[in-house]
Amino acid sequence: MDEAEIDVVLACSPHNVQYLLGGYRFFLFAHGTVMGVSRYLPIVGYVRGRPDRAFLIGNPLEAGQQELEPPWVVDVANAAWTSRQSAELAGRALAQRGLARARIAVEESFLPHDAHAALAAELPGAVLQDAFAVLEELRAVKRPDELVELREGAEAVVGSMRAVFGQARPGMTRAEVADLMRIEESRRGLSFEYCLVNTGPSYNRTPSAALRWEHGELCCLDSGGSRHGYVCDMARMGWMGDVPERARELLAQVAHVQEAARAVVAPGRRGGDILEAAHAAQRACANGGGMDFVAHGMGLVSHEVPRLTSTGVVSYPADHADRPLEAGMVLSIETDLRDPELGLIKLEDTVAVTPNGFEAFGDQGRDWNVTG
Amino acid sequence: MDEAEIDVVLACSPHNVQYLLGGYRFFLFAHGTVMGVSRYLPIVGYVRGRPDRAFLIGNPLEAGQQELEPPWVVDVANAAWTSRQSAELAGRALAQRGLARARIAVEESFLPHDAHAALAAELPGAVLQDAFAVLEELRAVKRPDELVELREGAEAVVGSMRAVFGQARPGMTRAEVADLMRIEESRRGLSFEYCLVNTGPSYNRTPSAALRWEHGELCCLDSGGSRHGYVCDMARMGWMGDVPERARELLAQVAHVQEAARAVVAPGRRGGDILEAAHAAQRACANGGGMDFVAHGMGLVSHEVPRLTSTGVVSYPADHADRPLEAGMVLSIETDLRDPELGLIKLEDTVAVTPNGFEAFGDQGRDWNVTG
Repeated sequence: MDEAEIDVVLACSPHNVQYLLGGYRFFLFAHGTVMGVSRYLPIVGYVRGRPDRAFLIGNPLEAGQQELEPPWVVDVANAAWTSRQSAELAGRALAQRGLARARIAVEESFLPHDAHAALAAELPGAVLQDAFAVLEELRAVKRPDELVELREGAEAVVGSMRAVFGQARPGMTRAEVADLMRIEESRRGLSFEYCLVNTGPSYNRTPSAALRWEHGELCCLDSGGSRHGYVCDMARMGWMGDVPERARELLAQVAHVQEAARAVVAPGRRGGDILEAAHAAQRACANGGGMDFVAHGMGLVSHEVPRLTSTGVVSYPADHADRPLEAGMVLSIETDLRDPELGLIKLEDTVAVTPNGFEAFGDQGRDWNVTG
Repeated sequence: MDEAEIDVVLACSPHNVQYLLGGYRFFLFAHGTVMGVSRYLPIVGYVRGRPDRAFLIGNPLEAGQQELEPPWVVDVANAAWTSRQSAELAGRALAQRGLARARIAVEESFLPHDAHAALAAELPGAVLQDAFAVLEELRAVKRPDELVELREGAEAVVGSMRAVFGQARPGMTRAEVADLMRIEESRRGLSFEYCLVNTGPSYNRTPSAALRWEHGELCCLDSGGSRHGYVCDMARMGWMGDVPERARELLAQVAHVQEAARAVVAPGRRGGDILEAAHAAQRACANGGGMDFVAHGMGLVSHEVPRLTSTGVVSYPADHADRPLEAGMVLSIETDLRDPELGLIKLEDTVAVTPNGFEAFGDQGRDWNVTG
């Protein structure tokens, strides 16, 4: 905040509110924000260098949860039923603190228009700017309790995939496979977020009821489940029937690229080193030309800081390509290979930077999971 | 739109985008909108009286789903990676249609500030106003396919509650009870949204790991699960052990108020009639003074049009108190009773207005569900 010359941050997105509150998320709106005529819009105000002046604007219904889990923020106003009210209350809290003409960072992609307008009307002398970079940077290095969530979440996602592959039968629709993932993730304490499913030679990854997983075909499960808000995103491969030699060979190539990429993960290494190691490994593979490699940070957001690469479909700035990795960062490392005959073969792993190198979370089931 | 003198509606909330697209929702962001450096922000543009000029701004990742489920909107641009990009593309689509100076209704509580600013910059001559009322009114009367979702969803929520009560054991924590609800709702094809849990004499309804359901105590489960986006919200009662006579009597009073309220549900009746019938029944109950009654529409949003009452914690305008109910409206009807000795006793039912009266969805398990 010093560098960015920001006096106050106002967080209002579910992930940043949870982060600033140290884990608290109101259970009633943990999976959606729509509320009556408007929406649930909690706002945390953090005044630079003055945690004692922080405040939280909430909703009357969350008083019960706060009795049982008191937030560290002392000044709590559970009084907003609309996004506009949340912003009005935040504006008044800032004015009371003498910050009516401050530089205020807000989440411009998450603060709704009516709330932004209400805030600007309450504080006509304030300068409003975007809080994205400041808040994201805060989340780059995970605390020990966050690492626990991500480790246990990764294990739960992979455990779910193995359970789903174990139950799969020839001719199941992709929608049925994704439904099983939702159930298995729920059984393991996760909130199901999504499951990309591709079967057979199709590169389309929609969990459609019109497409089936037949005998003699591959299935790639690429699913995100969240554990207390932390998104755990992994991909594993299944085969219906006896795995042909060619499939074994292609998955081994994908695994080889994944292993080359993780081998360079350590504090002090450049983010770009991971990309370079992966590309070198790709070039050494017979089918490396058909591969895509992506790596990115993950945590409360599935693609977040550190941003290591700008390849792949998601073209974000690779801010961390030339910055050193730090212990506590958590990376998602993904390699896929498109084969016209077999289909899309992919592994996605969760790799945490440790003081001595790396630890892969949920590192099971990386070979073909055979079923049928 | 004619009445409101609006030329174009731009919908961007998950529920209104799904509604205008006739059911389509991109599976990858069905449970969350955060995406990389910004968010997933689909925008549907609907030009008054000209469905042929409608457009959809999406994300490149959803092309696969649209191949399998082609949207009715012909002009689709899957090109936005940020909320700002979505709005810029929407602005250009409107300019191309000669609507640069139109009256454009946007969802002011859902359109993020950066998107609103980008839209205003693209179309400096346009007049932007709020779309809330127009979009909500569209959703008041449900289509037959929506009634199926709400009926099956209500049955699944109640089925989940009965399964949870059946598994409950003395000393379980409320968090464990809510976890079971998440699993049981998942098994029945629902996305778990929330579960309020109160046990024993405490009125606090937080599903906390610090509070337990002991022998000789009540438990109220009040849970929302969504089925293809439609929120189904019900409340049912359980008792651990043998139900005392006093508990039977109090739940019978709550049920009496619920039955009085639903008995007047029919096309042409005023929304306010429901409130009046409930209040009359309350007055006839020995413990009516300790009761709260609420009724509201439900569908893609858990509290939506028709807005029948302004009582209870959620103080919304009761727009429909003096307007006639119509067949196809779906109501949530809730009565709770606070008893200092036993705790909070509540029933919440889903009641659809039919051509001849009403139909209660998921109308099972309304007596004490005994366990332990």
